[in-house]
Formats: sequence, structure tokens, C-alpha cells
Amino acid sequence: MNVITKTLEKASRTAALGGLMLFTLLVSGPAMAEVPGETQFIFNTFSFLVAGFLVMWMAAGFCMLEAGLVRTKNTTMQCLKNIGLFSIATVMWYLMGYNLMYMDVGSYMGTVAIWGQDDSLVESGKFMGDDGAAYSSASDFFFQLVFVATAASIVSGTVAERVKLWAFFAFVVVLTGVIYPIQGSWEWGAGWLDQMGFSDFAGSTLVHSVGGWAALTGAIIIGARKGKYGEDGSVRPMPGANLPLATLGTFILWLGWFGFNGGSQLALGTGADAVAISNIYINTNIAAAGGCIAAIVLTQIIYKKVDLTMALNGALAGLVSITAEPLTPQLHEALLIGMVGGILVVIFVPLLDKMKIDDVVGAISVHLVAGIWGTLAVPITNGDASFGVQAIGVVAIGAFVVITSAIVWTILKMTMGVRVSDEDEEAGLDQAECGMEAYPEFRGSQTI
Amino acid sequence: MNVITKTLEKASRTAALGGLMLFTLLVSGPAMAEVPGETQFIFNTFSFLVAGFLVMWMAAGFCMLEAGLVRTKNTTMQCLKNIGLFSIATVMWYLMGYNLMYMDVGSYMGTVAIWGQDDSLVESGKFMGDDGAAYSSASDFFFQLVFVATAASIVSGTVAERVKLWAFFAFVVVLTGVIYPIQGSWEWGAGWLDQMGFSDFAGSTLVHSVGGWAALTGAIIIGARKGKYGEDGSVRPMPGANLPLATLGTFILWLGWFGFNGGSQLALGTGADAVAISNIYINTNIAAAGGCIAAIVLTQIIYKKVDLTMALNGALAGLVSITAEPLTPQLHEALLIGMVGGILVVIFVPLLDKMKIDDVVGAISVHLVAGIWGTLAVPITNGDASFGVQAIGVVAIGAFVVITSAIVWTILKMTMGVRVSDEDEEAGLDQAECGMEAYPEFRGSQTI
Amino acid sequence: MNVITKTLEKASRTAALGGLMLFTLLVSGPAMAEVPGETQFIFNTFSFLVAGFLVMWMAAGFCMLEAGLVRTKNTTMQCLKNIGLFSIATVMWYLMGYNLMYMDVGSYMGTVAIWGQDDSLVESGKFMGDDGAAYSSASDFFFQLVFVATAASIVSGTVAERVKLWAFFAFVVVLTGVIYPIQGSWEWGAGWLDQMGFSDFAGSTLVHSVGGWAALTGAIIIGARKGKYGEDGSVRPMPGANLPLATLGTFILWLGWFGFNGGSQLALGTGADAVAISNIYINTNIAAAGGCIAAIVLTQIIYKKVDLTMALNGALAGLVSITAEPLTPQLHEALLIGMVGGILVVIFVPLLDKMKIDDVVGAISVHLVAGIWGTLAVPITNGDASFGVQAIGVVAIGAFVVITSAIVWTILKMTMGVRVSDEDEEAGLDQAECGMEAYPEFRGSQTI
Repeated sequence: MNVITKTLEKASRTAALGGLMLFTLLVSGPAMAEVPGETQFIFNTFSFLVAGFLVMWMAAGFCMLEAGLVRTKNTTMQCLKNIGLFSIATVMWYLMGYNLMYMDVGSYMGTVAIWGQDDSLVESGKFMGDDGAAYSSASDFFFQLVFVATAASIVSGTVAERVKLWAFFAFVVVLTGVIYPIQGSWEWGAGWLDQMGFSDFAGSTLVHSVGGWAALTGAIIIGARKGKYGEDGSVRPMPGANLPLATLGTFILWLGWFGFNGGSQLALGTGADAVAISNIYINTNIAAAGGCIAAIVLTQIIYKKVDLTMALNGALAGLVSITAEPLTPQLHEALLIGMVGGILVVIFVPLLDKMKIDDVVGAISVHLVAGIWGTLAVPITNGDASFGVQAIGVVAIGAFVVITSAIVWTILKMTMGVRVSDEDEEAGLDQAECGMEAYPEFRGSQTI
Repeated sequence: MNVITKTLEKASRTAALGGLMLFTLLVSGPAMAEVPGETQFIFNTFSFLVAGFLVMWMAAGFCMLEAGLVRTKNTTMQCLKNIGLFSIATVMWYLMGYNLMYMDVGSYMGTVAIWGQDDSLVESGKFMGDDGAAYSSASDFFFQLVFVATAASIVSGTVAERVKLWAFFAFVVVLTGVIYPIQGSWEWGAGWLDQMGFSDFAGSTLVHSVGGWAALTGAIIIGARKGKYGEDGSVRPMPGANLPLATLGTFILWLGWFGFNGGSQLALGTGADAVAISNIYINTNIAAAGGCIAAIVLTQIIYKKVDLTMALNGALAGLVSITAEPLTPQLHEALLIGMVGGILVVIFVPLLDKMKIDDVVGAISVHLVAGIWGTLAVPITNGDASFGVQAIGVVAIGAFVVITSAIVWTILKMTMGVRVSDEDEEAGLDQAECGMEAYPEFRGSQTI
Repeated sequence: MNVITKTLEKASRTAALGGLMLFTLLVSGPAMAEVPGETQFIFNTFSFLVAGFLVMWMAAGFCMLEAGLVRTKNTTMQCLKNIGLFSIATVMWYLMGYNLMYMDVGSYMGTVAIWGQDDSLVESGKFMGDDGAAYSSASDFFFQLVFVATAASIVSGTVAERVKLWAFFAFVVVLTGVIYPIQGSWEWGAGWLDQMGFSDFAGSTLVHSVGGWAALTGAIIIGARKGKYGEDGSVRPMPGANLPLATLGTFILWLGWFGFNGGSQLALGTGADAVAISNIYINTNIAAAGGCIAAIVLTQIIYKKVDLTMALNGALAGLVSITAEPLTPQLHEALLIGMVGGILVVIFVPLLDKMKIDDVVGAISVHLVAGIWGTLAVPITNGDASFGVQAIGVVAIGAFVVITSAIVWTILKMTMGVRVSDEDEEAGLDQAECGMEAYPEFRGSQTI
């Protein structure tokens, strides 16, 4: 019952916080009765469902962000990739991922989920402890499912505008069915990283850097967009076609992140849980604000104008940065952690361009770089974490994802091919892969 | 107290599920205390409110989906119709619909709601049973209200690009004030279909096929868009102007559907309810994924390219398909039910075009065809339902809605007229009906 | 402990309602057990978090509404201002606003929040009363934070298309850090207006008219857009570039308003609270519908065509109108209150143009005019309120905000300047302030 272990561990960690100790004292008085078991069960389950639908909504956020940041000729494709990947992630998580991540990996091999076996998967009350206070396993299944889709969404943005549709979908199958759950089992499945003391509350490393590493590997193997980098070291701007859409996507992600981080408390059944989730909300929010403000100020200083896409990515980087530890920081610490994330984005986006790594939406800077930063920053506010173990986790998961992703991308490259022909890239993926324009009536004005 | 009957029935059905029996055994141990009455009351009420705001959000989803799938010259009109219909549905539901659906229809006639009478309508605790565990009637009123708006939204998409604004609004008045609540009373108002054993958990038939039948009737009576069908049997494509917007709409609907189906459990006050809602969430999600994947694969096979609008409609058809019974299927069954829905859409969209039934957004295929499929599929996983009774319900409600809709559309046609002049249709409804372009600065490039 | 006072006051007010008395009688029977303290704590806290994320989402609503209603050349800027102001509001609320609003203002001066001091701010259980039933202070902090951002969003729309980015941000710093919390403390901080009996449940005056007054003052001091008003009294239309986006924004705001008004009950821990929130939901919804319908009908009558932007603003005005008192009205009263709001918008938008007050998105009519109307309408349904005191509150807060805003805008005008050069205004703020077009591939068709 690894998940129970995990839950208990989080609960004890929650209780260990100074401010929450005070709370415990207050609630243990006669005024605050203990919450009955079934009531706790409902609270915990409902928390997973509400947080889960917020995280599911992040799939729309990624889709809008990416659809706004590509050019019109690739926009239909970007929408298709995003709704398709969420669907694939759903099915792969059901077929393999969930069992692979939360069951004993060794004994699991060979028992791949088949028709009918899912009964045991979502068997009611499976994870309920002796005290009767846990949650519906289906609600947990749902919450974890929407997480795996997030990792896949990150890849979608980086490799946009040149990846083949079916190669991308094939990669998503492996990423969501195999790569993500295996590394996830190391920590959230109570595996070796967890036992070593690695700490990643809601997934700066397990979700965001995993997506980022897979995206980075893909970007290198697939190569940059045609004409993006001149031989003289020049970088040709290829501005996104619809910035309000990208802004909407960012707001959606910001909203969804309350579920992402708040739901990762894994419980709402006690007053201490409610306090913890509340603190997570305000830390998450202020980290995003910090990342956004830092990017706004920094681009003003560097470029004398404020770059909206940097402001958006700065907010997202703030969110990624606080995700490894949204509970223990005080507000000013969360603000600073987020601001560093925003600064990193402003530094790394042009840096990757200098290295000729073509990341269409800036996802590597946002999810990988800020994800590493957030993970390494955990020991600053959480005494139970150590910098060394955090670094081991970052490196181990990074190595695993880079190696496995590289194998998959390479096999795809050698078989079905990973990028469209130069002609198709020039004409746009919408025409080549979808036969359908995103904005058919506006096409006369496409000049880029 | 029909709603109580309905609730109790659902509760007993919930308890009868195998997996949930196990749950009941577990929770009846000493560890799991019974949830106190007032706590249950709060949970149930809050569940209605959360599910209700998710379903209300579906109004935005329909609006974006339809605004993205019409041409630019009709986009303002489409937005106006959608926000207008939600407003009209709200008022009609208050004035007539709610009473008509949930009160005894016979004794209700003649007591049309008048100013001041609403006090009794939302009287606190009205539906509370002896055990004290029900919900605020206002929360139920809210939840049911957002359902009726869904039915009206479906019509809006099909008859787009040629219907007159005020004729459409007039139809919505009758649909939401009379047609929807009368047929709804047959099942959810504990009427004859309910007593016969008809089963429609969240409204594949009562909501989606009702909207679909009304849309179909409207499409036939109003006629196709000018130039859509050539005399030689050719079909002229009139592609949607903004596919990212249509994609956003689909994601919104997917999100809202968790409220649509999950909230239809009508309770969250016991552990069994929480388990049921969780199972509903994952079934709903995987059905959508199945519909989306099926449409993607099928369009690739048939057309050698993947059709984004089919992928979107496939996901929606998966959602409609699982809506009649989102609780009893196991995950693989829900996946298959959704996939069939997605396949049906890919088949029926061109089929309707062959029959020269002009459905601008594919709503008839999604909501009517998949709604019928979902309703007939209930007996596959729910032993209490029978195929025969399900078919009776589908036919009875279909006949009622087609006849009443036809009468209303015909009266409107003979009086105020239901479609704009050919010149106005050519120029676009935005200019004719609203005097306002949706994208005024992009007009130079409109070529379709 | 002002917030406790406030909560208790609201609770007693809730209990005093006729319908709710009935509820109290019902729940005090043997069937309805009292909700235990810790369970109440969780409910109250969770209500703040759910309502809070809905209100946070309103920031996206304002952004989309405004981005859709400005011209393409100013759209990037509008997005930037909106995500920037939410970030600034977050930080200022943390640094100053929250303490200023809810602590004793006198003793607070000189204790500006500094690094580390926030521990006491979000100390767990700080506001818990003797009965153990309140909420996490962090959840309250979050909920109040998203409110202050709303006020700032209102200003953003009115002064669009000519304001300087950094002048706007500077104004937001003062508005969210000083002006909003000081006037807020008068009522929600249990200050003199509260003690006088002023009643503003969720902020028709404290949030919406504050934003409206600040916007009005800004519009006057900054001046109208170049070419907007001819010397012959003509008004040049400058239509919004993307009406589906504006419609989306309106739907987002409508959705978020359930959190705005519902969360303002400040509790969910008793059956009476759940009933109250439910009633608030349906009143809020029907007021929006009423405002929308009124604007649709009125523009049809006046202009012979239906104006979508008026319909959108009518819905929003309905929402603002019901915000001062969403609990006590019966449904028909809420409907009428909302309809008046919608009518006021249709009257005031052209009226302001006649006065050459250039409000790009109609925010003054929606938030200020309807906000005043809603506040003055409270005594119609709430016997505890008096027209005279309501008027005093409106005038006092109006005077305070106008004077302070005028000082800030004037200082900004004399120092950094508040509007861009004529050339930059002509070229668009996106180029001048952001160096980035919102729709770069559509630029060929920009004709306005």
C-alpha cells in the first residue's frame, strides 16, 4: 500500500510544520471534534476530483498557449496534437501507466492490464486504511492521470511546426505508458528515490522536468525548423500568430495549478490538510506573480520593451519553480523562488537559441530549467530535504528520460520518420498532416 | 416529492453495484462513522453547486465551438445567440420549466409562476427527507437549469448561418419553457418512462437527443445554407473560421462534462456517493478519449489525413455516449462505448450531407446519433435496464420533440419567418442581424 | 478580530431571513446533527479556495473581454497589462493591502510588511473562534486577494489604447496597495461604514465602483483616444477586433461571479450557509440573464439591430447590480435588479461618449453605474439596510477613490507621463510598448 505510506508521510510532514503545530494544538482542544472517517473519505475524494478537473483543464491551457505561439499554418496541427495526446495519455494510463507507477514494478511486468482487469484497478475503497480515512481509488486514478498528460503536453510545444503527427503520437504512447510511470514509481510509487529522501511535492522534476527532458531530446534529434538559424549565427524570429490565445492558455495553466499543487496534498479530510492546501494556494499564486513580474522587469531592462511571451513564460516558470515544494515556504520565500524562475526563463530562451536548440514555445526553459531550480530549492525551506539527494534525483530522472526518449525518438526517426518534408514544413503542417487550415478566411494575409 | 424518490432510487442503484458493495462492507465497520445529516446536506448541496458551475461553463464551450466552426461573417451572431439562449433558458426555467418538470404536470397547469411565487420554489430545505439528508432546493434548481441550457445550445449550432435571430430566440423560449420540461418530467420528474424502467443517468436522451431532434427538425424546416448542396449532388465545404476557438470549446465541454455526469449522482453525502462520482469521472474521461482516438484513426484511414473537427466531435460524441450510463461500466466498457460514439460521428457527418441536411457544426451526429447509441447501450452494463424500454424511451421522446419542434418551427416560419433573405445570408448574419463584425480588422481577407 | 465579527454578523443576517428561519427550524430537529467544528473548518476553508479560484479565473475573463474589445494594434499590450496587474495585485496585497484592510489602520501604519513578517499574516488558525469553526486564514487571504485584482482589472479596460504601460502599473501598485484596502477597511474591515450599517455583500461598491471611479478619473485625466471625438460632436467608432474573445471573457466572468458572490457568504460550514450560497448562485445567475436580455431587447428597439457588445456588457451589469445583495432578493427581484443594470448600460455607454469620456470597453457603465445602482437597491430586499446609509457609502467611497486616484494619475502625468505619444498611439501600443504584434500574420488587413 505504497500510496498509504506516501499519504501518511505527507501527513506527518504537514504536522511537522511550525505554523501547523499551532493549528494542531488549537484543534485538539474540546472545540474541534475529530472529523469522522466517512466524512474524511468524502473530503479527500472530492479534493482529488476538484483538483483533478482543474489539472485536466490545464490540457486546454497548454493547447491554447501552444496554438497561440505557433504560426497560423501549423495551428490546426497543434490543436490536434493536444487533444490527441490527452486522449492517448488517458488510455495508456489505464492500460499500463497507473499499475506500472503504483504497483511493484517487478511483479507487475507480465500482467499488463487487459479487458476486464480494470475492476481491480478501481476497486472501491482499495486504498482505505484501518482508520477508514483515505479516498476513492478512482479519484486518485483520475488525479494521477491528468498529471501524466501534463508531461506529454510539454513535449508538444517544443517540437511544434516540424514534427510528424503520428511520430509524435507514437512518442506520447511510450512517454505516458512507460517512461513517465517508471520514473514516477521511483518517488511517488515509494521507490528508491523516495526511500533515499528525495522530495518533489507536486512534480517540478517528476512531471515538468520529465516533459522538459523529453522535449529537449526531441528538439535535438528532430532538429530545428528550416530557416530558424542562419549559418552566420543569426536567429530568425518566427512570432506566434495569436498572442491573446497564448495569454488565455497561461491563465488557464495558472488556474489549473491550484489543483496541481493543492491536490498534491492528497487529502482534505482534516483541518491541517485544509490549512496546508490554503498555504499551497497562496504560495503557488505568489510564485507565479513573482515569475511574471521578474520577466516583465528584466525584459524592460534588457530590451527596453516588455516582452509579453516572456511575461507569460515567466509566470509559468514561477509556477514550475514552486511545484517541488509549495507547502513549506513562507510567502516571501515563495515569491523569491518564483522570481528566480522568471529570471531563468529570460536568460535561457535566448541561450537555447544560441545553442541552436529550437524550442518553439520556450517549454524547455519553463519546465526543465525552472523544474530543476525548483527541485534544488526545496532544502531552502524544507529541512527534511538535502541538496545532495535533490541533485541525485534530478540527475537520475534526467538521465533516464534523456536515454529512453533518445532511444524512442531515434527508433521513430529510423522507421516512420520524425519530421515532415521541407515542402510540407514550408506549406505548413496543417495542410500536410490535417488538410485543414486553422484560419481559412485570414489566409490572404499570411506573410511569414 | 418526486426528486426524493429519484434520489433514493439512485442511491439503491449505487449500492447494488458489485464494487460498491465491497465499499459498503468496508465503511460499515467501526472505522467509518455515518456522515451526520447536516454534513450530508452540505456535501450534497455543494456537489450541485460545483457540478452546476461546471455545466454552466459548458454554455461557453458551445459558444466557442460554434463560433469557431462558422464563417467570420456569422460569428458575432453565433456569440449573440449563445449568450442570449443561456439567458432565456434561465428565465424560462424559472418562469415555467422547473415547476413543469418536477411538479405534477396535471395540477401544475394554471399555476404558472408569477411574481412572488418563487418563494415556494426555492423554499429552503423543501426537499429534505425525514433523515435530514438531502440538499438545498436552490442548488438543485441551479443544476437543472444549466442542463436545459445545454439542450438549447445544441440547436444553435445546427441552424447557424441562416436562421433569424428572433425566430431562434422564440424557439428557445418554447424549447426551454415547454418542450424540454415536459419530456423531462416523464423520466426525471418520475413520470411514466421512469416508472416503466427507462434509464438515462445524465441525459443522453433527455438532454442531448432532445437538442439533437430539435436541431434536426429545424435544419429540415429552415433548409440548407444557400449554395451548400449543388444540384449535381456536390457538397461545398464551408470551413469554420477559427479552429483554435473550436478546440477551446471542446475542451470546455469536456471539462464541464465532469459536472454534467458527476453531478447527476445527485449526492455526495456518503462514501458510496463519493466513490460513484469518482467512477463516473474516469468513465466520462475515458469515453471522451475513446471517441477522440476513434475519430482520429478513422479519418486517417478514410481520408489519409486527420480531420481536427472530427477529432473534436469524436471526443464530444464519446461524452454524449457515456452520459446515459456513466456509472456502471468498467473502464474498458466506457472506452468502447465512447469509441463507438466517435465512429458514428465520422460516419454520420458525411451521411447527413448526402441527405442534404445542413448541420453546420455536426451537432446532430454528436448529440442525437451518439445520444441514441448511448441510451441503447445502457443495458450492456446496467442489468436493471432493458433494451426494449430504452428503445421505447428513445422513440417516445424523439417523436414528441420532433412533433412539437416541427409545430413551433412551422408557426415561426409562417409568421416572423425563420431564415434571413438570400442577400443577408450572402452578406453574413453579423451585418444583417447585429450590424457588427466579429473580426472587423481582418475583413479584407475574407474570401469565402 | 474584525473578520470574526464580520462573519458572525453575516451569519446572524443569514439566519434572520424568513426562508432560512424555516430551514433553521428543520435542521434543529433530531434529524440534523450539528456539524462538528473541524468539519466546519474544512468546509469554510474549501469554500474560500473554490470560490477563490473562480474569482482568480475572472482575471482571465477581464483579459479576454478587453483583448477582444481593443483594436489589434493594442491587443498585446492589453494582455500584458492584465497578467501584469494580477501579479502586481498579488504582491501588493501581500506586502500591504491585506494588513491595511483587516488590521487596525492606525496601529498598522509604520509596520509595513517586511520579509519574514508574513508568518504572522498566514499563521494557521489565527481567526478561529472559541467554537473552533472558522477557516484557514490563508484561504481568506487568497479569496480577498483575487477581489482586489478585480478592481484593478476594471481600470485596465477603460484606459486602454493610450495609457503608458509603466504608468498603468504604477497606478495599480497604489490602487491595490493603498486605495482599495483603505476604503475596504471601512466596511469589510469593520470600519465606520460597517458600524453605520452600510451593506455591500460582495462588493458592488467596494470592488466594482471602486474600479469604476478609478477608471473614470483615469479616463478624464488621460484624455480620449486621438480621433475618437470630432470637434463637431461626432463619435468615431473604433470596434473591437475580436468579438468571440470578448464573448469568452464575458462567460468567464459570469462563471467566476458564482465564486465572487457565493464565496462572500464567507462560510459553508452549516446547512444554513449551504442554503444561502445556493440562493446566491441562482440570484446571481438570473440577474446576469436579466441584464443580458434587457440589453438585447433595448438595443433591438433603439437601433433595430442587436448589439453583441451591449448584450455582453448587459450581462456583466446584471452581475454587478446583484453583487451588493445577492442573498435576500427573491428570484423575480434579482431578475429585475439585473434588468435595470442592463438598461443602465445601454443608456450610459452612449451618454459617456457624448460627454467625451472615452471608455474603451464600457467598464464605467458596467462597474460604476451598475455598481451604484446595485448598492442603492439593497434596501429594496434587505430590511437591515437603509437608502440613506447606502447613499453615504456610495458617496464617501466615490469621493475617496476619485480624490486619491486623481492625485495618483496627476502625479504620474507630471512625472513619467500617462499616455504615449501621438505617433505611438497611431502605430499602436503593441509596437511602442511591447515591440510585439498580437496577430502578426493578419497585419496586412488592418485598416482601422
